[in-house]
Amino acid sequence: MIEELTIKSDSKILLLVIDGVGGVPVNGKTELETANTPNMDKLVRQGITGVTDPISRGITPGSGPAHLSLFGYDPIKHQIGRGVLEALGAGVHLDTDDIAARGNFATIDANGRIIDRRAGRISTEMNKKICAHLQKNISQIEDVKIDITSSNEHRFVVVFRGKYLDDQLTETDPQEIGQKPIRCEALAPEAQKAARIVREFVKRAKKLLDLPANMLVLRGLKKIQRISKMQTRFKLNPVAIATYPMYCGLAKLVGMDILKTGMNIEDKIETLKNNWEKYDFFYVHIKKTDSFGEDGNFEKKVRKIEKIDEYIPKFLSLNPDVFVITGDHSTPASLRSHSWHPNPFLLYSKWVISDRATRFTERECMLGGLGRFKAVDAVPLMLANALKLKKFGA
Amino acid sequence: MIEELTIKSDSKILLLVIDGVGGVPVNGKTELETANTPNMDKLVRQGITGVTDPISRGITPGSGPAHLSLFGYDPIKHQIGRGVLEALGAGVHLDTDDIAARGNFATIDANGRIIDRRAGRISTEMNKKICAHLQKNISQIEDVKIDITSSNEHRFVVVFRGKYLDDQLTETDPQEIGQKPIRCEALAPEAQKAARIVREFVKRAKKLLDLPANMLVLRGLKKIQRISKMQTRFKLNPVAIATYPMYCGLAKLVGMDILKTGMNIEDKIETLKNNWEKYDFFYVHIKKTDSFGEDGNFEKKVRKIEKIDEYIPKFLSLNPDVFVITGDHSTPASLRSHSWHPNPFLLYSKWVISDRATRFTERECMLGGLGRFKAVDAVPLMLANALKLKKFGA
Repeated sequence: MIEELTIKSDSKILLLVIDGVGGVPVNGKTELETANTPNMDKLVRQGITGVTDPISRGITPGSGPAHLSLFGYDPIKHQIGRGVLEALGAGVHLDTDDIAARGNFATIDANGRIIDRRAGRISTEMNKKICAHLQKNISQIEDVKIDITSSNEHRFVVVFRGKYLDDQLTETDPQEIGQKPIRCEALAPEAQKAARIVREFVKRAKKLLDLPANMLVLRGLKKIQRISKMQTRFKLNPVAIATYPMYCGLAKLVGMDILKTGMNIEDKIETLKNNWEKYDFFYVHIKKTDSFGEDGNFEKKVRKIEKIDEYIPKFLSLNPDVFVITGDHSTPASLRSHSWHPNPFLLYSKWVISDRATRFTERECMLGGLGRFKAVDAVPLMLANALKLKKFGA
Repeated sequence: MIEELTIKSDSKILLLVIDGVGGVPVNGKTELETANTPNMDKLVRQGITGVTDPISRGITPGSGPAHLSLFGYDPIKHQIGRGVLEALGAGVHLDTDDIAARGNFATIDANGRIIDRRAGRISTEMNKKICAHLQKNISQIEDVKIDITSSNEHRFVVVFRGKYLDDQLTETDPQEIGQKPIRCEALAPEAQKAARIVREFVKRAKKLLDLPANMLVLRGLKKIQRISKMQTRFKLNPVAIATYPMYCGLAKLVGMDILKTGMNIEDKIETLKNNWEKYDFFYVHIKKTDSFGEDGNFEKKVRKIEKIDEYIPKFLSLNPDVFVITGDHSTPASLRSHSWHPNPFLLYSKWVISDRATRFTERECMLGGLGRFKAVDAVPLMLANALKLKKFGA
């Protein structure tokens, strides 16, 4: 329906995703409540707030579906394999016949049982060497081309390129130590060729690997799904200013250009400024809040939030027609993981009716004027506030 | 989707359903607002609140769909006949071919018009005698076995066990006095045999009945629907502590064990304590609030709420990981019936962000941090707070 309503215009939307920003209270206050955030709080008083569920109430999302939802795509309808995301993020081209898998190098003992699912988090340099070694020795199995790309630390991507490959396959990662890697099995008769190729790949790779990374495990063996681009779906000209591969991969999947940028907020703002005239939808991703949440580091997450807050005036100085600040999912430091708690959401535009919220916190936003809504509705809301939507019906 | 996310764990969920607890104001205050409830109010300040719609806004639910929703099943997808519920509650086994109906003994006048739909609420003892008399004289019609089970007062269950019975049938209860019982008709050609059997049953029974219970009417002539158990759907080991047959029947349908318990809250808490180690999901049902609401007895409903409140510390002393207090539907004393008003909902766990609500009332909960949501989302929320859900996607 939305495709028929979107119109092209000059107005600009800025979506700032502070990864995992939401938390739960520790000694009565969440990370956002603890942080000193005068700039976001000021914006809250001028804008309108709410909270979003990435999937539905109670459901903790992975980063993939959480972002997809925030980009305006139903994450249940569009389930994307982790291998596909990693491949896209690493700049690996995928054809619709290819199967991509995310791999971990791992350590197994003499009995073949996994003793470290991350091979002691080997260095990225070592990873590169191992991948090159594997690629040199395993370039093809039967008529299927094997394409191995190293990623950070213990992670890599392997793409199986060939005909008649079906992706109804089991993963080989037991996701638990003390277990043996799982044999890749076809979940449907048409996937038997793919399963055979994957098994042969694992077998050959194992022979080539050595301690500490003497084994590999594969997850998310999937083909790329066709998904309509934001250009088509929303008539936007979107761009991503992000560094981590998965977010770039996801952004690319929905049609965003990916700009080279640095790890710091300064770098991202610089990139944003330099490209402000070229696009009308800007997705800026800040990862560290989530990382500190995952590490259980409440204090560092608070400091990072405060640091981000200092840069809010710089974002505002670009005069976006719509400025949204939110998280993709919550990552409470006390849980050390993603959580089901809804995301604080702030929308600022000249067309909002401001609510009574006075701070950018979970508790203030949960009583905000936008109420509680599905993250997939965020883009329509941004489009509306940017006057990029026509009337529905006469 | 939820089935793939649920994980087994030791954490315990306690769901206290105060039947029909929600009301509407009389002289400015609802039953909950009138009641003195210091313990629930204290819990509200530590937990998070909201209101639930059992079906959707404006829809008044029966007890069956209201409970089904609260147990995590879409009540529109799973419509269960009242006869099936009563049969299950009475411990009557149902095969998938059987049709169960809920019956009322009634009083008709010389013209065959119903003058009392409950036959003056005959005693349960008299009911038992009548049922035995009917059963002795009507054990089979054609090749269909007739199985009659007495219930409380004027209520009974009749099960038609045979082949080629279809349940597309009209009910015989006009649900109004001054009307004649309705002839059971087939709503589809394949239900003609069943309709014929039901009519013959009613005809024979009428001859055997005498004043004050000189007639019977049948409702909810349905087969049992297959429904996935909570064990499969949520990986829970659930138990019901309830006394009224219908609630027990519904609980059994979704896989709960039914524990023998008494009519008082003390009995229920005792049963709960004695079985605390054996289960991980506890459904405790308190009926009287609804009964007083149905009777239009505002004062007694208030007193019952206060009585329940006194026992909240006993529930808490079991240290549930998640404790939810809510109603299945509202039963305002001033309406003397179920109503469409959403249910106050309180969730307490160590992972909630408490909101601003200070009392367990409709008005405070309607501005609570959980917002307004469908009751079917309550179980996912409980599972999340009990850390019984995996992440969706990567």
